[in-house]
Amino acid sequence: MITPLAKIKEKLIANKLEAILISSVSNIGYLTNYSGFSKEEREAYLLITRNKQYVLTDGRYAQAVKILIPDFKLIEISPKLSAGEIIKQIAKKHHIKRMGFEENNLTFLEYKTIKKYFNNIYHLSISDLRNVKSSKEMQAIEKACELGDKTFNYILKKIKIGISEKELAFEIEFFIKKHGADISFSPIVAFGANSAIPHHQISEKRLATSDKLVLLDFGVKLNNYCSDMTRTVFFGKPTSKQKHIHQTVLEAQNLTIKSLTSDGGPERSRRNSSEVDRTAREYIISQGYKTIPHSLGHGIGIEVHESPHLSPKSKDILKEGMVFSIEPGIYIHGFGGVRIEDLVVLEKSGPRLLTHSPKAIIEL
Amino acid sequence: MITPLAKIKEKLIANKLEAILISSVSNIGYLTNYSGFSKEEREAYLLITRNKQYVLTDGRYAQAVKILIPDFKLIEISPKLSAGEIIKQIAKKHHIKRMGFEENNLTFLEYKTIKKYFNNIYHLSISDLRNVKSSKEMQAIEKACELGDKTFNYILKKIKIGISEKELAFEIEFFIKKHGADISFSPIVAFGANSAIPHHQISEKRLATSDKLVLLDFGVKLNNYCSDMTRTVFFGKPTSKQKHIHQTVLEAQNLTIKSLTSDGGPERSRRNSSEVDRTAREYIISQGYKTIPHSLGHGIGIEVHESPHLSPKSKDILKEGMVFSIEPGIYIHGFGGVRIEDLVVLEKSGPRLLTHSPKAIIEL
Repeated sequence: MITPLAKIKEKLIANKLEAILISSVSNIGYLTNYSGFSKEEREAYLLITRNKQYVLTDGRYAQAVKILIPDFKLIEISPKLSAGEIIKQIAKKHHIKRMGFEENNLTFLEYKTIKKYFNNIYHLSISDLRNVKSSKEMQAIEKACELGDKTFNYILKKIKIGISEKELAFEIEFFIKKHGADISFSPIVAFGANSAIPHHQISEKRLATSDKLVLLDFGVKLNNYCSDMTRTVFFGKPTSKQKHIHQTVLEAQNLTIKSLTSDGGPERSRRNSSEVDRTAREYIISQGYKTIPHSLGHGIGIEVHESPHLSPKSKDILKEGMVFSIEPGIYIHGFGGVRIEDLVVLEKSGPRLLTHSPKAIIEL
Repeated sequence: MITPLAKIKEKLIANKLEAILISSVSNIGYLTNYSGFSKEEREAYLLITRNKQYVLTDGRYAQAVKILIPDFKLIEISPKLSAGEIIKQIAKKHHIKRMGFEENNLTFLEYKTIKKYFNNIYHLSISDLRNVKSSKEMQAIEKACELGDKTFNYILKKIKIGISEKELAFEIEFFIKKHGADISFSPIVAFGANSAIPHHQISEKRLATSDKLVLLDFGVKLNNYCSDMTRTVFFGKPTSKQKHIHQTVLEAQNLTIKSLTSDGGPERSRRNSSEVDRTAREYIISQGYKTIPHSLGHGIGIEVHESPHLSPKSKDILKEGMVFSIEPGIYIHGFGGVRIEDLVVLEKSGPRLLTHSPKAIIEL
């Protein structure tokens, strides 16, 4: 298995670059195995040349970085020595004239600051860097999914009349954190008609018998890798319309998963993420519902949303070792919605499910 | 009191711009009072002209935005209509030729996408937009500080032999969330020698009698406004060296706060944040310790770290209505550290403390 650092060095060569500046916390985590930097503020950069690698950070992280990122030379950012100045010095020392950077992460201000130090500076899209997972990464994702399944099992017992969406979301978070993990995003909990809003913000709404629908979308972050899963369960007996919606979403997901197997059609269309997206979308429309108002799925790993993207306009090609969600949904304004989301890893013979919580209709 | 929207329109005029693109979630929250967008991914923009304002977001947020941001015209981003395309159409409709953007927030990729639609596009620093707080903002910050004080009082009872840093941090988070608020950042809990690392990452380390020092740095986020406070308490009787360090840090903080009052020296130096920083720094050095390895303080509001900055190189001038931290510290590698942090608001007569937890030596 090629290491993350070797992958980045291949990109240097392929793009005829002498160095690359890595600024996103996710890629820093991927390349160094250190995930201590904050996403809220810029606290570190990696500068990687063809045969040397540097980590730039300030005094708060110096001790940790020395121990935990031994393969990178640490240069400390301080009030006397700015990141820009350090980059300038390294560029001079190694005669770097052609440098790349992460165009979807570096801010304009940072770009403006450093571009003057190089003859040529190239904006690179390296969002595919992390899309094929190693076996070690797979283990981490599977552990996160496992705790996600446990959380779902636990949380079903907490769905009781009078509990609020906010309280239920808190129970999810509490359970995950009690098990030493973090949440990969703020849990979505939607009761009744709220489930028709795909990205509902949890409210103080309390569960009533008439609500029926309970949509739960949450994920675990464990050892820096994420899980993500959605289930829609019923509080009481679903109506026949609700049952039909649930069955249609589940069938759309099943058809999509089947289409990814080696006998699911010609190789070309199986691997084309926009065509995979279309499989679910067309089935839902064929059953008399509106199209899915979001993409069918997304890659997942260090970030909860990453490459590949499964959407109508995506050009991503699905490859062995990629991990992504498949999450069709039907949403009817004022009535309610159903979404079912699982993670799969694409293997030689087809997709393998990573989330295992039950998908048949659950009546609580 | 001038409204946030009026402030931004003043900036348009002052910079001879016809429009400004707002992309940071903090400034979107400030200008719209809506704080539902994620910081992890780009989910919305505001485009503000001299007499019209737009919010651009996707279907997940459309319902909420229509209700909660009625003064902004919603235009939905979709697979068929990208944010760039919408910006292009608005620019055309209003004949916008000179547009500004947030240079420290917009990514290079976004800049590249939109710059072609305008004759002139200007990178603006509007980090001072939020630095003077309104009375409504002050109320929100004070509420957050109040819950922070309650949390400190509660957490003291949880400091017991054998508890781990991670468990104690979890107790802080749990208490804050049980009270309907959020944490403004991941709590820092450091035992013994770990307290010498200003930005210690919480570990599985368990509290032992020999640790003595317990550093707690945490904040509350309530109604979108943050608090931040640090206390260093003693588990058992402090040594005379530890006592001296604690007294020195506390005295450095007291001297700094006093220097901000109207009789604290000439107006010029009282209001110059680098000179305020120097007051604490020089006192600590005069007592035989190394200088503070971080800045003395930071503004706080919607973000836990924002303008003004109190540091040796800062050019920020402190004004009435600004809220900021004062957090001197002494750190001795392998031995331990003490930091004391409070929030103050600068009023006409001087600073008023917003955090009220006890600062005298606490022996547990």
